[in-house]
Amino acid sequence: MASPTLIALVALLSLGVHAQDHPDCESGPLSNNSVCDTSLPPRQRAQALVDAFTLQEKLNLTHNNSPGVPRLGLPTYNWWGEALHGVAAAPGVDFAEDGEWSYATSFPQPITMAAAFDDDLIYAIGDVISTEARAFNNANRSGLDYWTPNINPFRDPRWGRGQETPGEDTYVVKRYIDNMVTALQGGRNLEQYKIIATCKHYTAYDMEFWQGNTRYGYDAKVSPHDMSSYYMQPFVQCARDTKVGSIMCSYNAINGVPACANGYNIETILRGHWNWTADENYITSDCTSIQNMYTDHHAFDSRQQTVAAALNAGVDVDCGYYNPTWLASAYSQGLFDEATLDTSLLRLYTALVKSGYFDPPTSPWRSLAWSNVSTPDSEALALKIAEEGIVLLKNDNDILPLTISSDRNYTILMAGGWINATEQMQGIYAGPARTLVSPWMALQNVSNLVVETFQWYESPLLVAERLQPDLILWIDATNEGAEETEDRNTIKWDLMQVDALEMLALTGIPTVAVHMGEQCDDAAILANDNISALVWAGYPGMLGGQALVNVLLGDAAPAARMPLTQYPTDYVHLVPMTDMGLRPNNETGNPGRTYKWYDNATIDFGYGLHYTNFSAAISPPSNTTSTFDIASLISSCDQTGLTHVELCPFLPLSPLQVNVSNTGAVTSDYVALAFIAGEFGPAPHPRKSLVAYQRLFGVAPGSAQMAKLNLTLGSLARHDEMGNQVLYPGRYRVEVDVPVQDVWEFELTGGEVVLDEWPQEQ
Amino acid sequence: MASPTLIALVALLSLGVHAQDHPDCESGPLSNNSVCDTSLPPRQRAQALVDAFTLQEKLNLTHNNSPGVPRLGLPTYNWWGEALHGVAAAPGVDFAEDGEWSYATSFPQPITMAAAFDDDLIYAIGDVISTEARAFNNANRSGLDYWTPNINPFRDPRWGRGQETPGEDTYVVKRYIDNMVTALQGGRNLEQYKIIATCKHYTAYDMEFWQGNTRYGYDAKVSPHDMSSYYMQPFVQCARDTKVGSIMCSYNAINGVPACANGYNIETILRGHWNWTADENYITSDCTSIQNMYTDHHAFDSRQQTVAAALNAGVDVDCGYYNPTWLASAYSQGLFDEATLDTSLLRLYTALVKSGYFDPPTSPWRSLAWSNVSTPDSEALALKIAEEGIVLLKNDNDILPLTISSDRNYTILMAGGWINATEQMQGIYAGPARTLVSPWMALQNVSNLVVETFQWYESPLLVAERLQPDLILWIDATNEGAEETEDRNTIKWDLMQVDALEMLALTGIPTVAVHMGEQCDDAAILANDNISALVWAGYPGMLGGQALVNVLLGDAAPAARMPLTQYPTDYVHLVPMTDMGLRPNNETGNPGRTYKWYDNATIDFGYGLHYTNFSAAISPPSNTTSTFDIASLISSCDQTGLTHVELCPFLPLSPLQVNVSNTGAVTSDYVALAFIAGEFGPAPHPRKSLVAYQRLFGVAPGSAQMAKLNLTLGSLARHDEMGNQVLYPGRYRVEVDVPVQDVWEFELTGGEVVLDEWPQEQ
Repeated sequence: MASPTLIALVALLSLGVHAQDHPDCESGPLSNNSVCDTSLPPRQRAQALVDAFTLQEKLNLTHNNSPGVPRLGLPTYNWWGEALHGVAAAPGVDFAEDGEWSYATSFPQPITMAAAFDDDLIYAIGDVISTEARAFNNANRSGLDYWTPNINPFRDPRWGRGQETPGEDTYVVKRYIDNMVTALQGGRNLEQYKIIATCKHYTAYDMEFWQGNTRYGYDAKVSPHDMSSYYMQPFVQCARDTKVGSIMCSYNAINGVPACANGYNIETILRGHWNWTADENYITSDCTSIQNMYTDHHAFDSRQQTVAAALNAGVDVDCGYYNPTWLASAYSQGLFDEATLDTSLLRLYTALVKSGYFDPPTSPWRSLAWSNVSTPDSEALALKIAEEGIVLLKNDNDILPLTISSDRNYTILMAGGWINATEQMQGIYAGPARTLVSPWMALQNVSNLVVETFQWYESPLLVAERLQPDLILWIDATNEGAEETEDRNTIKWDLMQVDALEMLALTGIPTVAVHMGEQCDDAAILANDNISALVWAGYPGMLGGQALVNVLLGDAAPAARMPLTQYPTDYVHLVPMTDMGLRPNNETGNPGRTYKWYDNATIDFGYGLHYTNFSAAISPPSNTTSTFDIASLISSCDQTGLTHVELCPFLPLSPLQVNVSNTGAVTSDYVALAFIAGEFGPAPHPRKSLVAYQRLFGVAPGSAQMAKLNLTLGSLARHDEMGNQVLYPGRYRVEVDVPVQDVWEFELTGGEVVLDEWPQEQ
Repeated sequence: MASPTLIALVALLSLGVHAQDHPDCESGPLSNNSVCDTSLPPRQRAQALVDAFTLQEKLNLTHNNSPGVPRLGLPTYNWWGEALHGVAAAPGVDFAEDGEWSYATSFPQPITMAAAFDDDLIYAIGDVISTEARAFNNANRSGLDYWTPNINPFRDPRWGRGQETPGEDTYVVKRYIDNMVTALQGGRNLEQYKIIATCKHYTAYDMEFWQGNTRYGYDAKVSPHDMSSYYMQPFVQCARDTKVGSIMCSYNAINGVPACANGYNIETILRGHWNWTADENYITSDCTSIQNMYTDHHAFDSRQQTVAAALNAGVDVDCGYYNPTWLASAYSQGLFDEATLDTSLLRLYTALVKSGYFDPPTSPWRSLAWSNVSTPDSEALALKIAEEGIVLLKNDNDILPLTISSDRNYTILMAGGWINATEQMQGIYAGPARTLVSPWMALQNVSNLVVETFQWYESPLLVAERLQPDLILWIDATNEGAEETEDRNTIKWDLMQVDALEMLALTGIPTVAVHMGEQCDDAAILANDNISALVWAGYPGMLGGQALVNVLLGDAAPAARMPLTQYPTDYVHLVPMTDMGLRPNNETGNPGRTYKWYDNATIDFGYGLHYTNFSAAISPPSNTTSTFDIASLISSCDQTGLTHVELCPFLPLSPLQVNVSNTGAVTSDYVALAFIAGEFGPAPHPRKSLVAYQRLFGVAPGSAQMAKLNLTLGSLARHDEMGNQVLYPGRYRVEVDVPVQDVWEFELTGGEVVLDEWPQEQ
């Protein structure tokens, strides 16, 4: 749940929102400052502005709710925007009460978007979000900085904010980042940012409040192996490869040092090893996280030392009030240099310069307006990604898709707490939507369909037998919600919910179950022969009910795959959330985390059925084990000119071709998945690792399409105990699909080679 | 939090609420049935109605949402009403959207009411609640059955529903029951019930959802000592002594047997040992708790066996849908007799007969109408109990009461999340109120007062120094809320909240802190010399802000005492909620529970300051140790004719007289408290036990009043390991006040005597 304080803060903040006016570079005082001179390099423009500030002004410009400098005509500016799956409410985003600017397209949560395994669609969605965000900015209703996406990998099924992420697998997360962030920022190698995205939360942040452990004071103990191979993977993508504009440091400490004063993570890794040093690359704190270094981490002896530590570590924005309260006296105490403050301000104003904030309104993005928000096309994308993200988990006797004859009425008896879900389908960090279509609403529009519901106190058996429906459709989510500031304690269904479902199914009437919301253990539903089908939809967004009905009726054919492991109920008793370890540990009893290290899932990562059958075969087939020399692979890479050797193609499988044949009777998409497995490198060995995927579209019955999956040298690498990324000799296996449909084996020979040497903490 | 399912249920239920029509005994079919013949004994009238039911009808009348019997003119009836601290929303209570019948008087939560230690006021409040409830019934907007009060003692500070109770001490709880239940039911030795109250939850229920342990399936392991001396104490008061009409069995199991099928608790103790066998004495399940015996406790092999077990154990109402779903097939399977079902129905309809449900509308209560709801007098009581329940915990240099001169404006800078609290002050199980007055609102009406607030992102120092207020008033509650279905994990203040308070206090401006909501550790606030005063208000109800302001300004003088222990922060790490043990246990590390067994409190039970000083001295003083013979005490009791020897007066202290002198300068109430302490009986010995209290009113400066505190033989008794209540020889000490102001010592001689033999579970 959002804490009462957070709610109170947001309530207060909403009073404090000012229109995000643009500076007047034409006739205001700034017109005489070089910051308004578009002919100059961005850094030089920003430097001119910073040079105009007095020390006192500088000391008050490093928090999210910037007062600007009225003397100079620099307006107030709120750095805090949110747009996780559509422009959302935030202190820096001002929705109207009604009418124009009162809503935006509200896409499914990233966990459902990720299930589609459709990179191009993620890019298209990011483009819609940044278009709408830019339109809000043009109307002075938002800034140009949006603190999205949340890309901490979904390590533990209890995490309250896991729904905000693309799931547990770092490869999926990295692909998501590359498409979403690039689209949000307006493309690659930009002259100007469309908006600035912020990768959060740096780093090893994935616990809210669990059994008395609070994110504000939590110290995540992480080994170099786990840090490099898992927790840092999204950030190397963001910072080094996708070149995100901004990064947020997290609440927690990492191995004893709070994230927002962590020199190793910020200087050594982020700005050093990954060279995240563009002039505009700024770091914001999470909201109150600088204060938390004093109140919760007790990391410094005074409040002044606390704000100085964050500034000296390179944190440029305090989302909170500690900087404006304590920075001046910290300066008086000599705890930081003015030059350090200047560096932060230079980053911040370069970011605004590079977003066109000080430019005349002539760029194409400046013409975006209300007519570009929540358009029919963008809402169609919201429907499409929801359809593509719905996973079919069980379908006995092909009960789905439903067949509704035009000869007679077909009766569906709906049961469960989410049959009329609207806002619930959006999940957290959602903005207001033009419309929200629940499953119940969507079914009203189907011809020849009668929809019945019942009161909870009515006996399911009496009601079901009286109505004699053709189908029982149960739609529910686990009772224990996942929310910011709160983790879950169980991953089991509420037993009374399942009891109601089981009683309904006892009638013998065909029964379909839909699992929305968080993951919880579906084992009993899967095992129950009276329940014919099970569908997972997560948080399918503003048109989620329509998407679900389209899938149930066969107007859309399901092809999504689970973007996370579904654990059995007792998993949560085996490992505390505070154990950050990924690999099984006999001493602690940790059974391992994610599909790579845990082997007893109720539903495996990557699982998903179709309304048809597919065969997937590597093409051409290989009956012999190929052998490749590591040194040769590296040297062929040298010729590509790529800076980072792990990004070089693994030429023998660039691409891996998989021939996908639809052997059933329904046209359907198909997601080709390729994993690497094998006993190479030091034990313990992961079960397998996803290295490539491709969604094929509209494979017709009896036809085939070829998936082309590109592997890199990094696809084959593992991480050693020091965190180094290493290419090991040994026997490798490429596995296609879940469960495995085809395998291709090969061997690497020669000596092991470090692809990326992980800087060690001193 | 209320679970999503609960919310969904309540939402659905609200659609299902029918007007609670009265039966037509004049011209309807029932006019020919003896149930409408007021000249007959109630049981005979109820029997006539039950005799008219068919078996099929009987099988459908034992759940809360009774369909009635249309054939007989018996209306639908919802047994589920709520009125914990005023008539509240419930499936059986129908508030109007606006206008008449859209609200009722909303008193403080019982935890705040208990702090007043004012029995007569509790009775007066109960009388208002039942008057308003009866008015709702007269308008066909509620039934005559209200499932209140919640009287499980507040064992653990984490309990989500502790606010609903009068605190941790069984003596206080018992006094509360005797006054509240008697007033709700309309008096003692009734011809007719005003309404029927329900003591809940029977028994050992005081955990919602804690770290994965759910109330629905929790098995409370309780020793006979703890059961008899603590968990059962409220129920012996309810059932045996106050003669409540109805009792609710709880979700949990007790020592392996679910409460709603627990023959030992229901038959042996409740109906046997306590003789709770009036014709109308019925038991309801908690909502879904019969279903939970199957789904969560797995106590029975089939759903039919489950409903039969509850019925056979003597549970008469299923709040849920299991009875109407499964009772018929359970009967077919021969799992219970029709006579058993008849017994339940006879209890239920006798209860309605004895509430006047089948009588002509001639009783005085039948004339109660909307004009009797939320009257100025009843709202004045809501204000008075809130004023009386506010505890003063710190008052350095007598900063309180505030002095506001008429010569100039006085400026208060308000800070904290609850400065404008309205619904929050009501707490859970509250109904809509005519008005809600927050502290901020109440301060608006004070002459010569300027009230300022600030935005959270503003620096407290900058703002406070700019405004130069006369006072900083901080009002907040702990962030981790206590709610039904959720327990807390911490009892510490959110560190950022306290940080904000401490920063404000650093300004040197006089600072007053008000602690609302749940208990959490105030040690840092008490120890901070910059914070001059601390006030606890709990959940002070609809006019709580006005009551607080009246106390701060001295229009009401605080005299309340803490009705529960305030534990230090680390307490929650020492004992899990699932450890039901009350006494310290070296093996488990349990440090003991409640002031009786725990000796390291931040604030002791019974503590509270005044705006004046009081001396309390036992009168006449005794300098020698008196000696009393146990056998003589017992035999003198025999002459009183009392059935239960522990209720006999302890004649030497009937009453204990305490002379209370106001030695200060302000007229004030004073709560005289008497505890028994000593090393008598087997170890371990409780620190002390509250045995009597009396609130004295309006003690003027320089004057004195005499408190008269009646002790019983039960006041001196303890419970042995078997649960027997025993009077032991030994040295006793009567302690007056917290901290102790005076002591009276005496000795009991002779052999130990069992006052009440606890029936053992076979």
